[in-house]
Amino acid sequence: MFNNVTIVGVGLISGSFAIALKDKGFAKHIIGVSRTRESEQKALELGLIDEALPLNEAIKKSDFIYVAIPVDATIPVVKDILDQINETQIVADAGSTKQALCNAIQNHPMRHRFVATHPMWGTEYSGPEAATRQAFTGRSCVICEKQLSDIDAVQKIEHIYTTLGMHLVYMQPDAHDVHAAYVSHISHITSFALANTVLEKEKEEDAIFDLAGGGFESTVRLAKSNPAMWAPIFMQNRENVLDVLNEHIVQLRKFKACLEKENYDYLKELMENANKIKRILH
Amino acid sequence: MFNNVTIVGVGLISGSFAIALKDKGFAKHIIGVSRTRESEQKALELGLIDEALPLNEAIKKSDFIYVAIPVDATIPVVKDILDQINETQIVADAGSTKQALCNAIQNHPMRHRFVATHPMWGTEYSGPEAATRQAFTGRSCVICEKQLSDIDAVQKIEHIYTTLGMHLVYMQPDAHDVHAAYVSHISHITSFALANTVLEKEKEEDAIFDLAGGGFESTVRLAKSNPAMWAPIFMQNRENVLDVLNEHIVQLRKFKACLEKENYDYLKELMENANKIKRILH
Repeated sequence: MFNNVTIVGVGLISGSFAIALKDKGFAKHIIGVSRTRESEQKALELGLIDEALPLNEAIKKSDFIYVAIPVDATIPVVKDILDQINETQIVADAGSTKQALCNAIQNHPMRHRFVATHPMWGTEYSGPEAATRQAFTGRSCVICEKQLSDIDAVQKIEHIYTTLGMHLVYMQPDAHDVHAAYVSHISHITSFALANTVLEKEKEEDAIFDLAGGGFESTVRLAKSNPAMWAPIFMQNRENVLDVLNEHIVQLRKFKACLEKENYDYLKELMENANKIKRILH
Repeated sequence: MFNNVTIVGVGLISGSFAIALKDKGFAKHIIGVSRTRESEQKALELGLIDEALPLNEAIKKSDFIYVAIPVDATIPVVKDILDQINETQIVADAGSTKQALCNAIQNHPMRHRFVATHPMWGTEYSGPEAATRQAFTGRSCVICEKQLSDIDAVQKIEHIYTTLGMHLVYMQPDAHDVHAAYVSHISHITSFALANTVLEKEKEEDAIFDLAGGGFESTVRLAKSNPAMWAPIFMQNRENVLDVLNEHIVQLRKFKACLEKENYDYLKELMENANKIKRILH
């Protein structure tokens, strides 16, 4: 479908996307753009990319440019790309926040060649080595402000994501950011905070190592996530994240009050209410 | 090894243990004891047990009695069993708290026939249908106050657990309960509270359903756990759980303060500290 595709960033998301583009026959040649020489080398070695180039040179050669870098860097980089493309090139991003980016480029004369997307897949690992085959499959992908993108551009991107096995969801950027705070960002904050709790209080690391079972592993695994990626997400979505975080502290305080007052009935009630999550999460 | 084994409780842990005992040739005949007729029937249908009997009758026929019921019920039931056994029978429990039980039976004349254990395996599901093959493997099993149990009893129990692929850890009951608060109980509380947070604030359930990815799933799955099992655990271990919960709220407030004050550097620092969990959790 595309002769030359550029991925900006050569990490977990972009690297996995590059593998999938090749596997599904969407790209003949993949160019990688990275801030560091090491990442470029690693991505070449791993076969994620065919060539590493500086951004400006990569843009000139590419039919499609896919940006998957920390969300604070995404804004100036996407602007820079839009400044340089022509009317046939397509640009998309994979960022975990959408409002700030969409606002920042809303009046750009090339906005119509851009598609704002958020494929809701990831792992706690990062860098080129974290890229995997079979990523994205079975997960949702949000597309924002579809109406601001040219039809040919949107259709190509939709075709790629659905071919990767993703379920498309359309939302306004502000709605996306609210929902993302609930179903993704707060999980990461609780996981980071839980890791800090245990590291702070549990001085016997051997005991953690010996005893930590599946429950701990699953609630804490997100605490391994890359701060360089997640700090900008929390900052850009800070109002929504604060809103959910405040509510979460309120909910934890209810458990605390039950234990302090030995209110067994209310404790069970809180847990029975939480069980309702079964309805929506299988 | 045993002709007749009784499992008290026919749920996730006892049912999985019964399957394993049969699979590994440790038991010829398994008797199930349950409070409800439905669970007994279900356990018989699923082949977890060969026979369902009232506790008193089951004790008389059994070489080994394994108790895996909510920790509040465990105390009177274990006392009742110890009142009825002879010097060759063996009793063990699988409870998630150890201090209250060990204290309650410390002066019982048959304490030496009892082995206090906590196999650190579980899932968020409960009941006979939740029992699975290949449970326990690769996880730790804590044995408390080994010195208070007869050598023949401890050795048999150790042999069973190690044959199931568990790694044995020896601890005093109070140390067990402290560590369990960190590596298991707090994870369940945060998960229950996170489910309540999302259910309280996110009125659009379709959005959760559409968007919830792997991160949300893994931090919230423990919120499906059975309140009848977990409320007594939190209550019996309330001082340790409160201690960890207070620290967790402090840690969450640090994230909150960073966002409120837009202190990006400290936010990254908190997350980098949390990343240290990689050292002890692979």
